[in-house]
Amino acid sequence: MEIQFKPIGFFHTSETEIPRHWSVSDASGRIEIDPAFVEGLKDIRRQSRIIVLFCFHKSPSFMPGLLIQTPPHKGVPMGVFSICSPIRPNPIGLSVLTVTDIRDNIIEVKHIDMLDGTPVLDIKPYMPPA
Amino acid sequence: MEIQFKPIGFFHTSETEIPRHWSVSDASGRIEIDPAFVEGLKDIRRQSRIIVLFCFHKSPSFMPGLLIQTPPHKGVPMGVFSICSPIRPNPIGLSVLTVTDIRDNIIEVKHIDMLDGTPVLDIKPYMPPA
Repeated sequence: MEIQFKPIGFFHTSETEIPRHWSVSDASGRIEIDPAFVEGLKDIRRQSRIIVLFCFHKSPSFMPGLLIQTPPHKGVPMGVFSICSPIRPNPIGLSVLTVTDIRDNIIEVKHIDMLDGTPVLDIKPYMPPA
Repeated sequence: MEIQFKPIGFFHTSETEIPRHWSVSDASGRIEIDPAFVEGLKDIRRQSRIIVLFCFHKSPSFMPGLLIQTPPHKGVPMGVFSICSPIRPNPIGLSVLTVTDIRDNIIEVKHIDMLDGTPVLDIKPYMPPA
C-alpha cells in the first residue's frame, strides 16, 4: 500500500544551516503556496500559530538500524517514534510556526526549523490538547 | 513532484461511526504497528500524549471548490488550511492521543477520531509550543 502526496508549496529561507528545533528556533522564512490553493489560506491570521507538515526531502533513507537513535540534545538512545529525528520511516516533519505576515500566496513565519526548498504537505490550525 | 509514503501500521476500533474530533472524543482504539518497526516504539509510555499522523483514506478526492468549507461546528465558511476537514489537498490527519497501554506492537489509545482501518503514517512525541 503506497500513499502519494504532492506539495502544496515550498519553504524558503536565507538560513544556510538547518535551524534548531522549532520550539527553540528564532529563524524566519516564508511558505510559498501553490497559487492554485491560495483561496484556502483565508482565515490564517498574523500572530497566529499554525501547524505545518512537510517532507524531510534531504534526509537519508530510513533503515532498520535507525529505529533507535541518540538525539544530540538528549544523549541517550531512544525509539524513533519518541524523537523528532528527520530520519524516520515516513520522513514527515511537523513544526508549530508563528505567522508574522500573510499576503497573496506567501506566509511569512518564524520559529522555522527546515531547509530552504522544503516541500510543504499541509497547514492546519494549531489547537492545544484537551 | 510526488512524495510516497507507506503506512507504519493501522488503527483499529470497534466504533462504527467516526468519533468527534480528538479534542472532544472519548472513543478508544488501538494502533497496530508493523512488527518491522516495533523497536522504534521504545520510550512511548502509558499516559503520555502522542501525535499521530494518518491518512484520511476514505475521504472523497479534493477539488478546488473545497478550498473553502463550512465546518459543521462553526457554521461559517473557512479556508481549508484553518480547519480540520478530512477533505484537503493532501488528506493527512493529525490527532493528539493519550496512550492507555502499550505492549509489543500494539498501542492502546483514547481520544481517537479516526475510522477502523485507517493507515498510520507516523507517531511523534507531543511537545507544547514555546
